[in-house]
Amino acid sequence: MITEDILAALRLIVGASGLKTADTLSLIHPGADPHNLDAGVMVVPRNTDQVAAILSLCNMHRIAVVPHGGRTGLAGGAVSSPGEIILSLAAMTRIESLSAPAGIAIVEGGVTLQTLQEAAASANLSVGIDIASRGSATIGGMISTNAGGMEAFRLGVMRHRVLGLEVVLPDGSIMRDMVQVAKSNEGYDLKQLFIGAEGTLGIVTRAVIRLAPGDAFTATALVACPSAANAVALFQKLQHNRGIHLLRAEFMARNYFALASSLLGPATLAAFTEAPAYLILETDAANQRQALSALEQALADSIEEGLVADAILAQSEKDRSEIWNIREDSNVITRAYPHGYWFDISVPLQELDTWLRQFDQGIADLGPDIRGFAFGHLGDGNLHVGVAGESTNPPKDKVRAMIYANLKEMGGSFSAEHGIGLEKKPELMALIDPVKLALMQSIKRTFDPKGIMNPGKIVG
Amino acid sequence: MITEDILAALRLIVGASGLKTADTLSLIHPGADPHNLDAGVMVVPRNTDQVAAILSLCNMHRIAVVPHGGRTGLAGGAVSSPGEIILSLAAMTRIESLSAPAGIAIVEGGVTLQTLQEAAASANLSVGIDIASRGSATIGGMISTNAGGMEAFRLGVMRHRVLGLEVVLPDGSIMRDMVQVAKSNEGYDLKQLFIGAEGTLGIVTRAVIRLAPGDAFTATALVACPSAANAVALFQKLQHNRGIHLLRAEFMARNYFALASSLLGPATLAAFTEAPAYLILETDAANQRQALSALEQALADSIEEGLVADAILAQSEKDRSEIWNIREDSNVITRAYPHGYWFDISVPLQELDTWLRQFDQGIADLGPDIRGFAFGHLGDGNLHVGVAGESTNPPKDKVRAMIYANLKEMGGSFSAEHGIGLEKKPELMALIDPVKLALMQSIKRTFDPKGIMNPGKIVG
Repeated sequence: MITEDILAALRLIVGASGLKTADTLSLIHPGADPHNLDAGVMVVPRNTDQVAAILSLCNMHRIAVVPHGGRTGLAGGAVSSPGEIILSLAAMTRIESLSAPAGIAIVEGGVTLQTLQEAAASANLSVGIDIASRGSATIGGMISTNAGGMEAFRLGVMRHRVLGLEVVLPDGSIMRDMVQVAKSNEGYDLKQLFIGAEGTLGIVTRAVIRLAPGDAFTATALVACPSAANAVALFQKLQHNRGIHLLRAEFMARNYFALASSLLGPATLAAFTEAPAYLILETDAANQRQALSALEQALADSIEEGLVADAILAQSEKDRSEIWNIREDSNVITRAYPHGYWFDISVPLQELDTWLRQFDQGIADLGPDIRGFAFGHLGDGNLHVGVAGESTNPPKDKVRAMIYANLKEMGGSFSAEHGIGLEKKPELMALIDPVKLALMQSIKRTFDPKGIMNPGKIVG
Repeated sequence: MITEDILAALRLIVGASGLKTADTLSLIHPGADPHNLDAGVMVVPRNTDQVAAILSLCNMHRIAVVPHGGRTGLAGGAVSSPGEIILSLAAMTRIESLSAPAGIAIVEGGVTLQTLQEAAASANLSVGIDIASRGSATIGGMISTNAGGMEAFRLGVMRHRVLGLEVVLPDGSIMRDMVQVAKSNEGYDLKQLFIGAEGTLGIVTRAVIRLAPGDAFTATALVACPSAANAVALFQKLQHNRGIHLLRAEFMARNYFALASSLLGPATLAAFTEAPAYLILETDAANQRQALSALEQALADSIEEGLVADAILAQSEKDRSEIWNIREDSNVITRAYPHGYWFDISVPLQELDTWLRQFDQGIADLGPDIRGFAFGHLGDGNLHVGVAGESTNPPKDKVRAMIYANLKEMGGSFSAEHGIGLEKKPELMALIDPVKLALMQSIKRTFDPKGIMNPGKIVG
């Protein structure tokens, strides 16, 4: 119960403007899930000490705390309920330092990805991670969900970009592990537990992020492949080609590309070669001419080898943005099928073709009115998969069973980069190793004995 | 106490040939630390179930277990005492599968790095990690110490090469998390706790390792820089140069290079330009001519810019191996100064020059008979540092204080890639964040309530 006394105590910590209820809260957008703000009370601390004071107070009074970053999460990790309080990092948005020689940024948890990307770009550096929700997703939220995105095959997921971390624990104590180096073995690497914990073990207040060299001169191509197996073979070939520096390799199955290109256009792309698998490949080189000619040559070779059916090389920034739009505006599918089910899986590359064939067959078996869409990040075998009926959806259990059939045996994952939140809890409980689950539960009890941190999420 | 009954029970699990005592144990080399075999009893299980049965038995009878891989660890993590038993992975050496299209190997914990490197090379792949003790270091041991080495700046430390893990917990239960994909967020990433835990939380029995493309045609240069700051600037410049694919960048301070080159030869290298900082740079390209000309051009540009004083480009495999020998046979220093103290630190790149100047000054302050040696992995700021007296060593506390002065404030680490073991425990207790230490202790109690796993190491 959030009493008036609790509200008064919170106000003492964050000031009147830092406490949002009723009227002031109604001005805030709920984000990706309509229930994110259901708690009705939000505190907006301005520094780590305020976060610590809030958690200490809430722990003492057993008040549940739901941490909020940019509210872009797709698994319901930020959903809150009456009786809980939301702790938003929205006022902790400082880039404390960015060192070009070291390739390191020290940031507060509420900095958005795009803000950090822009700061890094001004030093010819990149964050080394990129996701479509860059404008609102925060670094703290991306750490808490171990975000992936388009560059992970090359530069790792968020876990691999984090060098150091500061975390406020549920009892208000502060773990400071802000090393700025990649090699540090100072006992158990506890920061790894908070990465991907979706705010159930503590709140990420500050981080040291490793930056990467920025893109040089880029070349972009839309590529049609005779099969997903060919797309994988092409990817591996480019990974071994020292004349090509591959930046991004995004995948779209026929079902996704056909609908997205017809809805988004332009006509030239919508009329592109019919094929089971499409890729967007982006490379860079020391100059523009070299970037284009190296990619053109590699694609010509691949056509000759039969790995590629056809390809369009972007000749202008307009070409490039039209090609990327088909992949990045994936909401075009959810707008067309708002009641579809969505999944976020990883499939080992050697099994990708098999899984996609199994998926096409599964969709056909569900009936003629059922549509399936698959797209994602090729290098990681990370597929975002949608299933929807033209009139009514098939039963969710049946769809789930089809999506996850053989996935674990293949070495894949039912939860790639969006996290567990509330949405993937049935999967977690059904598919996880029981010994791992028991250990997760003891970790949760050890770190958060009163169970105040983001209740209901993961094993809470 | 290891009673006859316990020995009989162990023999029932691993068979007579899998239990080594007195005579049979004396045939085994103790490895990097003379006390590794002091327990006097070793079990050598052949599979995960046997490991589980051993731990279950030992846990029930509170018998301490010291896991052994290749016994190459430099921090005493494999040291054992009478009353304990050693559990060696020496009979679990299977490469279960190696998929070239997926770039993945599934291995047992006792496989040596070199064995896996050779298997990967036959598919034009690399393990993505390389350390000088490759011939005996095992994958399980490298996971347990989160090994780093020469390629970490580019391909990550061991933590970043591990996709999936199988671990036997102290009570004999088996956590199976053998995913084969880079993106997997299935709750808390518990495998991260075992990586770098030096066998104090469980025993790594199997792992899924992500492989990387193998080297193409390489070029190698020995480079003298007017300062360590210049060496760092050169490294960053090459990282941004899309015409260069940098594979390795090893660092040697003047003090190291002068002694090692004079002891190891050849005369041409020993007579190479006098400078404060030396690098070995290795690059690759699509063909030999291109590899050599690109590196030559980059070095010529760097000489013009003043980043490089002089450089020798290897023209043959013999040149290449002579250059590498000066860096890889670092034991030449420990043979010359067998009683020296050694440290393994990380320094953020922007502070490397400052730290090294501080080090030179510190050595001078200790007295005219004191020698200091620094070398290591440039891209990670990872320095291996030795201090020794010509006649007698300075007091260790004084040397420690000098090495660690300002290191934490700089964002560095007192334990880069060799682990804590027994040797770095004083550092751990003195320098670690107290909140992190308390959490580490609760993790240890939660996972290993009877304290049987590798006692005395890290927080045991």
